[in-house]
Amino acid sequence: MTLHVPKGFEFAAVHCGIKRKPTKEDFTLIHCPNGATAAGVYTQNIVHAAPVVLDRQRTPSSDVRVVAVNSGNANACTGQRGWNDAVEMARLAAEACGGRPEQALVMSTGVIGVFLPMEKIAAGTKAAHSKLASDVVAFEAASRGILTTDKGPKVTSRSLSLGGRTIHLAGMAKGAGMIGPNMATMLAVMTTDAPLTPEVAQAAIKAAADQSFNCISVEGHMSTNDTLLLLASGAAGGEPLTGRELEQFQAALTDTCIELAKQIPDDGEGATHLICVRIEGCRTPVEARQIAQTVANSALVKTAITGGDPNWGRIVSAAGYAGVPFDPTGVDLTVNGHKLYERGAPLPFDAKTVSQAIRGQRETDVFLKFREGSAGMRFWTSDLTVDYVKFNADYTT
Amino acid sequence: MTLHVPKGFEFAAVHCGIKRKPTKEDFTLIHCPNGATAAGVYTQNIVHAAPVVLDRQRTPSSDVRVVAVNSGNANACTGQRGWNDAVEMARLAAEACGGRPEQALVMSTGVIGVFLPMEKIAAGTKAAHSKLASDVVAFEAASRGILTTDKGPKVTSRSLSLGGRTIHLAGMAKGAGMIGPNMATMLAVMTTDAPLTPEVAQAAIKAAADQSFNCISVEGHMSTNDTLLLLASGAAGGEPLTGRELEQFQAALTDTCIELAKQIPDDGEGATHLICVRIEGCRTPVEARQIAQTVANSALVKTAITGGDPNWGRIVSAAGYAGVPFDPTGVDLTVNGHKLYERGAPLPFDAKTVSQAIRGQRETDVFLKFREGSAGMRFWTSDLTVDYVKFNADYTT
Repeated sequence: MTLHVPKGFEFAAVHCGIKRKPTKEDFTLIHCPNGATAAGVYTQNIVHAAPVVLDRQRTPSSDVRVVAVNSGNANACTGQRGWNDAVEMARLAAEACGGRPEQALVMSTGVIGVFLPMEKIAAGTKAAHSKLASDVVAFEAASRGILTTDKGPKVTSRSLSLGGRTIHLAGMAKGAGMIGPNMATMLAVMTTDAPLTPEVAQAAIKAAADQSFNCISVEGHMSTNDTLLLLASGAAGGEPLTGRELEQFQAALTDTCIELAKQIPDDGEGATHLICVRIEGCRTPVEARQIAQTVANSALVKTAITGGDPNWGRIVSAAGYAGVPFDPTGVDLTVNGHKLYERGAPLPFDAKTVSQAIRGQRETDVFLKFREGSAGMRFWTSDLTVDYVKFNADYTT
Repeated sequence: MTLHVPKGFEFAAVHCGIKRKPTKEDFTLIHCPNGATAAGVYTQNIVHAAPVVLDRQRTPSSDVRVVAVNSGNANACTGQRGWNDAVEMARLAAEACGGRPEQALVMSTGVIGVFLPMEKIAAGTKAAHSKLASDVVAFEAASRGILTTDKGPKVTSRSLSLGGRTIHLAGMAKGAGMIGPNMATMLAVMTTDAPLTPEVAQAAIKAAADQSFNCISVEGHMSTNDTLLLLASGAAGGEPLTGRELEQFQAALTDTCIELAKQIPDDGEGATHLICVRIEGCRTPVEARQIAQTVANSALVKTAITGGDPNWGRIVSAAGYAGVPFDPTGVDLTVNGHKLYERGAPLPFDAKTVSQAIRGQRETDVFLKFREGSAGMRFWTSDLTVDYVKFNADYTT
């Protein structure tokens, strides 16, 4: 995949010493030399980290100059000192880039409850600033600097032609555990050179998140630090997008966010399957997502897929406790193209064939059809494996 | 423990051929020769089994004669035929005991989506009826006949003196997986010889469930078959309980239900720890339970306990997404007596000491204190282990 890096941005990442391994980048700068429109969506967790508080206060904005991100430490549950550290981290980044303190945003991810090593952050800011560049190599380095337990970087991009201009979109994300949406349980930055007003940018990223980062989970644990930012430099030129052009941009943004978001459960800790729960025939998209999410977060559904077991009773019964009213005699279930359950009653099927259909491919399609309305939703999650448990029974402290 | 079997009941269990192993009982009868007051609470899952529909229609009742229970098959998601089978199973039991069809209740547990083998049920009913007895041996056999993946029977009993009468209470339960409350995700029967009106019995079992079977989980998956019945024969004599005597009975019933309910997560599939999440300082018991349940159902919290890891960030962050508003700067966390977090900020602690305190005992006490009010709740769950995943990736079809 060729990455299309939008104009109007510079990127860099360094190892500043938060992660133990000196070869691993743990500090990223995203610089917008001429400023960018910035919008964000954030975790709905009451217990949220200091950088989330700071970014929420400062977005939407018409003139953000820099985003500083560290990995290895979430600066969450750190009280007043954590808040002071987040403010200082933003100030250091703004100072390095020649901006005002309030023109900087910050993101942190990693262990909860440990104070940020501010000397390392200060040194990292300077080091990263000296390496800023606008090419693909710099973008890829930046995408590595935000990772924690991820197996590798998560990036995506595309370009589209809008009214004679070429618009670029490029996103990076991190996340493999503590993934349970609302908003999304991870860090992600979408950059674009499209011209967008702050209000339009905010509405656009919210709409995209509702079909992408809010539709993924690993184990369903909502994190303290989830942040998805949209940075729009306007460097593609022209007036801010409206009307038909804005619609095309929104579609591209949503698609790109879905592409990026799916990489998170696909890289879920220990995952051997990416499970897509598809819902059709609900009364509203919110109800469809509620059912999809409940099915996706059931440990019994996840382990059934892990084992290649077409145990459809677990899927149907999970839908039943989602808190959404529906007629149980109007439900169909199809797994990887095999219909197992129709209008509330079991269909005969060959367990071996369906089991092999699950075992034989990375992605499992779980399709639940209701007869309540016309709304649908897709939701992606990881399966639950022995390796997930081993990993999380051993991680940290 | 000596079991106090209440007067006015007979019990029996046989192997009728639903479970493969011929030594395992899979059909239980509980006979009330002179009738019993019966009350029940049931799963809130929209997708619920035929026996749940039947029992819900027939309780509370002043004159139930028999309860028939089979294990190995849940008679859930079986459509119209499943309903006909449940009605027939009740009719067979009533006929054997000389009662009217509507004086029988039924319970089923096991695999979802398979039709009940009605010939085996009919034969089992006759065989069990011929073995009915009122002693401890018969009670214990009955408690084995309702088990599925349980390691062993779950029973409890006590006796209390009320106004010159001796009242006995004895309960049996099953459940080790698909445990996520509301009501309780299992089968349980509480028997007593106390005299109770149907209305009082219904209120009493609901109140007891709200502090016991509605406060447990294994993986949080609400089942299709959850049923908790209270059968009161009145054989202890005297008028139906009221006032102070009823209060004493309620306290004993609730305690007994808690004792029985805790055995379920303690026997949770693959469990190495029983985790008690204690909440204090909430505005209402419902909010306290909501937080306790969210913490208890987090895979990250469970795996931390499995690994003996005092990773308190996972606990505090889970509380934050429970959907209950609270002031995050007013939260304290104590694990097995070690205070780790106070008023929203971390306390210094020796990780090794706390880890050893978790590893060294079967039960882990997770105590979250809020500063919102005076309501509290206790909630019990299993940890999440490699063996849970192995077991559920392999179970059935």
